[in-house]
Amino acid sequence: MTTGLLKGKTGIIFGALDDQSIATHVARTCVAEGARIVLTNAPVAMRFGEIQKLGEELGAEVIPADATDLGDLEALVKKSVELLGGPLDFVLHSIGMSLNVRKKREYTDINHEWMLKTFDISAISFHKTMQVLYKLDAMKEWGSVLALSYIAAQRSFHDYSEMAESKALLESFARSFGYYYARKKQVRVNTISQSPTMTTAGSGVKGITEFFNYADKMSPLGNAPAAACAHYCAVMFSDYTRYVTMQNLYHDGGFSSMGMAPEILE
Amino acid sequence: MTTGLLKGKTGIIFGALDDQSIATHVARTCVAEGARIVLTNAPVAMRFGEIQKLGEELGAEVIPADATDLGDLEALVKKSVELLGGPLDFVLHSIGMSLNVRKKREYTDINHEWMLKTFDISAISFHKTMQVLYKLDAMKEWGSVLALSYIAAQRSFHDYSEMAESKALLESFARSFGYYYARKKQVRVNTISQSPTMTTAGSGVKGITEFFNYADKMSPLGNAPAAACAHYCAVMFSDYTRYVTMQNLYHDGGFSSMGMAPEILE
Amino acid sequence: MTTGLLKGKTGIIFGALDDQSIATHVARTCVAEGARIVLTNAPVAMRFGEIQKLGEELGAEVIPADATDLGDLEALVKKSVELLGGPLDFVLHSIGMSLNVRKKREYTDINHEWMLKTFDISAISFHKTMQVLYKLDAMKEWGSVLALSYIAAQRSFHDYSEMAESKALLESFARSFGYYYARKKQVRVNTISQSPTMTTAGSGVKGITEFFNYADKMSPLGNAPAAACAHYCAVMFSDYTRYVTMQNLYHDGGFSSMGMAPEILE
Amino acid sequence: MTTGLLKGKTGIIFGALDDQSIATHVARTCVAEGARIVLTNAPVAMRFGEIQKLGEELGAEVIPADATDLGDLEALVKKSVELLGGPLDFVLHSIGMSLNVRKKREYTDINHEWMLKTFDISAISFHKTMQVLYKLDAMKEWGSVLALSYIAAQRSFHDYSEMAESKALLESFARSFGYYYARKKQVRVNTISQSPTMTTAGSGVKGITEFFNYADKMSPLGNAPAAACAHYCAVMFSDYTRYVTMQNLYHDGGFSSMGMAPEILE
Repeated sequence: MTTGLLKGKTGIIFGALDDQSIATHVARTCVAEGARIVLTNAPVAMRFGEIQKLGEELGAEVIPADATDLGDLEALVKKSVELLGGPLDFVLHSIGMSLNVRKKREYTDINHEWMLKTFDISAISFHKTMQVLYKLDAMKEWGSVLALSYIAAQRSFHDYSEMAESKALLESFARSFGYYYARKKQVRVNTISQSPTMTTAGSGVKGITEFFNYADKMSPLGNAPAAACAHYCAVMFSDYTRYVTMQNLYHDGGFSSMGMAPEILE
Repeated sequence: MTTGLLKGKTGIIFGALDDQSIATHVARTCVAEGARIVLTNAPVAMRFGEIQKLGEELGAEVIPADATDLGDLEALVKKSVELLGGPLDFVLHSIGMSLNVRKKREYTDINHEWMLKTFDISAISFHKTMQVLYKLDAMKEWGSVLALSYIAAQRSFHDYSEMAESKALLESFARSFGYYYARKKQVRVNTISQSPTMTTAGSGVKGITEFFNYADKMSPLGNAPAAACAHYCAVMFSDYTRYVTMQNLYHDGGFSSMGMAPEILE
Repeated sequence: MTTGLLKGKTGIIFGALDDQSIATHVARTCVAEGARIVLTNAPVAMRFGEIQKLGEELGAEVIPADATDLGDLEALVKKSVELLGGPLDFVLHSIGMSLNVRKKREYTDINHEWMLKTFDISAISFHKTMQVLYKLDAMKEWGSVLALSYIAAQRSFHDYSEMAESKALLESFARSFGYYYARKKQVRVNTISQSPTMTTAGSGVKGITEFFNYADKMSPLGNAPAAACAHYCAVMFSDYTRYVTMQNLYHDGGFSSMGMAPEILE
Repeated sequence: MTTGLLKGKTGIIFGALDDQSIATHVARTCVAEGARIVLTNAPVAMRFGEIQKLGEELGAEVIPADATDLGDLEALVKKSVELLGGPLDFVLHSIGMSLNVRKKREYTDINHEWMLKTFDISAISFHKTMQVLYKLDAMKEWGSVLALSYIAAQRSFHDYSEMAESKALLESFARSFGYYYARKKQVRVNTISQSPTMTTAGSGVKGITEFFNYADKMSPLGNAPAAACAHYCAVMFSDYTRYVTMQNLYHDGGFSSMGMAPEILE
């Protein structure tokens, strides 16, 4: 399905790593819908080469940038505006990584230096990106900024650890910055709270398969796949959703509104 | 803007009364986006003749139905399926009327018989509609059912009176029925919580202008206009939002996420 | 444990049926904490005689009243004010009954006449009670009105059926009426969203045992027992919580904040 | 009003600075209700001497501790357990400070190093405190841990800046850690979302007086005073609220449930 929803629009996609990444799905969908994009990821992610291939496939420049580094972000935004011929219509932030999860520290035995680093990578990078876009006046009027979140921001999921706090931060940044960006340029800022997704990043989380199957059963429509998430992102980047801002939007097959599914008991 | 988002889709639109109605905007947008529709409203609303004109403009049949009457709803749905050539892709419920507000009864001096009637018209009609669609198996797989709500379902707005409870009911019906319809046919059920809108129905609410201006100032993007709401509805009817269900979606220029806007204090 | 938390206070307790009723626990706790109370229930509930015994045990008058009948409510309130020596400090609404659940109608095959009756009994009775109290000016300043709710007001629980909507209504009434009562007399209005409880009323709900055990495992502290709920009600009636109003308060061992408990998967 | 609600209980109160501090009110109330406590604050806060006077007044030891320092926290907890004769019943975290607000940096021109420091002081200190209590097994069964929050965690308040994110973090820590502490020892963890309060800390926030007056008008009961907050904290530390955990509790005179107050328009 394509309708040219994003015809003539331009944007930056953060976080495409490989074919499983939600950001990869979003990038492909945006281009299929008529947009021109720039891809970016941390320099270390470049090593695997898949993002370069994606860039070639989509006719998109790939610009490495450490999303925790204001200098890198500035260079990225300036270069993107130049390449894409002017201010941007959309930006996707799809970045998340937890040092304490990676290093298997229990939530009650956290290394707080690592926690700060996790917040910087997974959430503060979103504020930094918006601050750079805002200062460089790099978004078009009625542009759309999105970040990917998870319902652990609202409810406790044992093994999600400090990523719960990262997502709570991320969603708060969307509300707070959304106010300023709406007043300045009618730019919308939202988060999409996506079903658990079997990505390379996600697969590092302990018990992700149990998460995944439980959520799939609990969700009346089943877990939302990455391809469907890409369609939802496209819609949020389009002119059809101009008055939606400062929201956290559940794209989860109904999970967030379930109390108990009889399917779980069986 | 049109992209053919609803090409080949069919649906029923409840509640178009005149040019100010949100439902009228939705009807026009759906047809512009490629859908074929049936229009319906209460028999009494036919008298004014504007819905007939709208039907002619859009090439849409107009079928009167009292949305509180199961018999009327059954006839409407059967006829619509017949006219549109099979099960439906979407349904919009845009119905609301408060007897106590109309008759200027204070919220602390409610006539409870009228309250029951208000609930029947404004909210239970939504359950009835879904029950009829469900029993007649009149929706296509992955179809989409929407109702229009208001943030008074969550927060107190003095003059909104028993309509607050009507909207709370409406949103609860969306969650409850959404579970069943997802399991049966992957049909999605959602509500859109729209900014205050200057419709003929809305203008009956005491203090609506103050509401409207206050909400406009409080919302970083300003109040969402009816035309923008129609675009959002189209998106929710489309295949781009298949995994969104049992949600209440704020389409309000950011109002719902505001605590205090400095613009209010000035 | 008693501390005389409600010393000198007076109130009405609706809904004590037998020893399992939450209202019975609340009545005993209030009296133990120093309050004098009036007990009330529907005339039909009197037949079983347990409420009379409770009245004798607690030195409390028992006044039958149909909570859907404004005349009965007026008589009840007037008599209570007279018996208790003046305006009241607190009122507990613990009433809920679903005709469609009782008669085993599926949620997708609801009898809507019964639904209206269910709403009248389970939710509108709360508005009626407050309206009568308000008009008769029967509450003391900083008084406290409470109703018992359930998380089905926010999330879908398959077998809870139209009680979900009843609780959504109930909580909306608390917010809406709470505004007026705060402005008039600093009276607080709140709902407590209690864990599933094995009461005589609750046991009529299909699958209540599965509900109960699931919720117990999902709740980090386990399901909150009725006796604990009574303590929480006492606190909400006391002067320690004067600035809490228009809130829905979860008393559920943490259930409402859980996304997934590993205990469920085992 | 005192009832001996906390007779025999012991706890630590963080954050008493001077007579305006909410923590000072909580300390006085806890002692009046029968508790024995330890007071703590950052070493720099000791200079002003008021906390020493408060300690003398209440017969409470004052132990300086930097709440961002695990070593300080360990020493504090160990000493407190020793002084108070065993594991604790309650802990209050009332700490908040924003470097960017202090240094008048706009939210769209944040210094992100300062932001990290703000989070460490205002929110991560809460996780650190719980982690130390947990590892040292320093809480009694059914103990209660509380932190003070603000509704900026949910809604945008222009001048609150990065404190919005700090409070979002704080509330997320309560949910996440609450799960573990409930499972281990039935310890409850909650946050109280208090009305804006004219404290020495609060008065550093730009536009606090406008905040305060606006919130006061918007709240049907008016802003909740610090003394009332202390009573609410006492109740949350008591055995009357044992099954409330992982909650954010609004103590705000109804502010959080208001959409529009007619008083604002006048």
